Amino acid sequence: AALAAAREDEEEKELRQRFMAPPVSGLRELRRRRRELRSRMELLIMETQAEVCRALAALDPGASFAVDSWERKEGGGGISCVLQDGEVFEKAGVNVSVVSGLLSEEAARQMRSRGKSLKAKDGKLPFCAMGVSSVIHPKNPHVPTMHFNYRYFEIEEADGTKQWWFGGGTDLTPTYLNEEDAIHFHKTLKEACDKHDLKLYPKYKKWCDDYFYIKHRGECRGIGGIFFDDMDSPSKEEVFQFVKSCAKAVVPCYIPIVKKHCHDSFTPEEKLWQQLRRGRYVEFNLVYDRGTKFGLLTPGSRIESILMSLPLTARWEYMHNPPESSKEAEILEVLRNPKDWVY
Amino acid sequence: AALAAAREDEEEKELRQRFMAPPVSGLRELRRRRRELRSRMELLIMETQAEVCRALAALDPGASFAVDSWERKEGGGGISCVLQDGEVFEKAGVNVSVVSGLLSEEAARQMRSRGKSLKAKDGKLPFCAMGVSSVIHPKNPHVPTMHFNYRYFEIEEADGTKQWWFGGGTDLTPTYLNEEDAIHFHKTLKEACDKHDLKLYPKYKKWCDDYFYIKHRGECRGIGGIFFDDMDSPSKEEVFQFVKSCAKAVVPCYIPIVKKHCHDSFTPEEKLWQQLRRGRYVEFNLVYDRGTKFGLLTPGSRIESILMSLPLTARWEYMHNPPESSKEAEILEVLRNPKDWVY
Repeated sequence: AALAAAREDEEEKELRQRFMAPPVSGLRELRRRRRELRSRMELLIMETQAEVCRALAALDPGASFAVDSWERKEGGGGISCVLQDGEVFEKAGVNVSVVSGLLSEEAARQMRSRGKSLKAKDGKLPFCAMGVSSVIHPKNPHVPTMHFNYRYFEIEEADGTKQWWFGGGTDLTPTYLNEEDAIHFHKTLKEACDKHDLKLYPKYKKWCDDYFYIKHRGECRGIGGIFFDDMDSPSKEEVFQFVKSCAKAVVPCYIPIVKKHCHDSFTPEEKLWQQLRRGRYVEFNLVYDRGTKFGLLTPGSRIESILMSLPLTARWEYMHNPPESSKEAEILEVLRNPKDWVY
Repeated sequence: AALAAAREDEEEKELRQRFMAPPVSGLRELRRRRRELRSRMELLIMETQAEVCRALAALDPGASFAVDSWERKEGGGGISCVLQDGEVFEKAGVNVSVVSGLLSEEAARQMRSRGKSLKAKDGKLPFCAMGVSSVIHPKNPHVPTMHFNYRYFEIEEADGTKQWWFGGGTDLTPTYLNEEDAIHFHKTLKEACDKHDLKLYPKYKKWCDDYFYIKHRGECRGIGGIFFDDMDSPSKEEVFQFVKSCAKAVVPCYIPIVKKHCHDSFTPEEKLWQQLRRGRYVEFNLVYDRGTKFGLLTPGSRIESILMSLPLTARWEYMHNPPESSKEAEILEVLRNPKDWVY
């Protein structure tokens, strides 16, 4: 018995080292229900958080991630890791949240983009939602902003049946276009998708372009990537394996691009253009992003973690129009007419 | 006849000098229908624009207003005046718009906060909407941001009856609290209201606090002022006279505060706090402001004029909390618990 306890302590220590903070559900509880998908997903999002934070911190040796564990009084909690005002990164946030509780039928319907109807007992549905989400805003205007988010939902209906689905995506928002980077980014995502089904990349690439669209500007937020929601087939296990491949692709997608450009020289004009593009990022996130809007409207949600996605600084100039054939006009052209980067 | 024509030319020249640009409806047309309220309102908003722009420009001699007249292909147009990156003002915009056309019943209902039903012929309602709106963001953190907007709507129902109403308000958003300024601002507004009805100031002061509320932060955007919508009694003439008093109060409300503080010294920390407050201003305008949201969703609206209200620069820091008893905590306290400034 003493030996078993010692081994358990060892395991706990090891798991703790792998993560940025103890998981919301507790290691013991996760071990107890280790075969359940929600436990495996919680470990995956914790691992992803740690992998991404470590890869970023390694590139910005002067700075380090502040780690906040927080609880939600309605159930669950999260771990927010934020690096602010570093040498390489202006603001980099990687957030995990694992929340559960009861949803109204209306709220449950809104969570699901297809709006399936759900049968509730006494009008309330027990739910569990978890995810990792991140936005990385680098300082150098030649290093693009990157966003990713992978999430899992479970809702229990009145008759005990569980509805579940996954959502997520990874996308890139450069200040200036670099075709080689765009191709590397999309190619890495495509490879992650292709391992599971050749139809996934084209479908989710298009979904990404459609989703990250700033309607009032007639521009996409960035040069895309992949985006999906409501994914519940072919099977829970297969979708989980797909999501795992996507989560594992975040570091190889993005880190080589940061390494390549983080010491590029830049002009004050290039920095200014970056700040104007940051303004567009704010416009998308506050006006259109479903996750942000849902978070802002949900009582008890942690505002600081939701708005972590906003850049440290942004700028709005009246009637700023870059000159024709400039590098600024080049990226605008691509944002107005999304391109295919890999075939 | 030659004499009459010469006098008309003189009048035109004089009117032209009074305004920042020729009015959208044209001087001849405004003169022809001079007794109609929409003509008198158009002249009032043009005069207000010119008065405010001149008062601001006089305080910032190095800078000047760029004046853009624009047309809306669905009917009407506007005049946007913007001063950007001056000595005193970071960004000051004063916009007039006069638009008309056909509205769907649904859109017409949304325009009116009380959501009255309107009977349309063939589902479309002829409407006319005009207003002056302005946001002034000064550079010095000891000079508050000011916003005002005065507007008039007319909708013609199927049976030929016209529904009309006015809306508007003036409100102040300081970075730091200055009680003397807060009292001067509210007192000037109260005096403008009291000339018409003693009930107006208390009612519209409360409406302002309720409207400019950033729900997800639990904070008001600023220290308020007045705000009203759907005002259609006691009579068209009386409401117009009230709106006129409010519009005439903009300069005496605000300009003395700018003069008093625009040469105050400030620290980098005070500038930083201003930038964080600018971030909150962006959050309110993009997430909650009805006018902004309506504008962003309306096809053919002029995005640059709508988003003129955003500051030149803004900042978001993760988990920024000012120390207790600091000047930053003092303004936060007032934003969380709005005060009465005059009785």
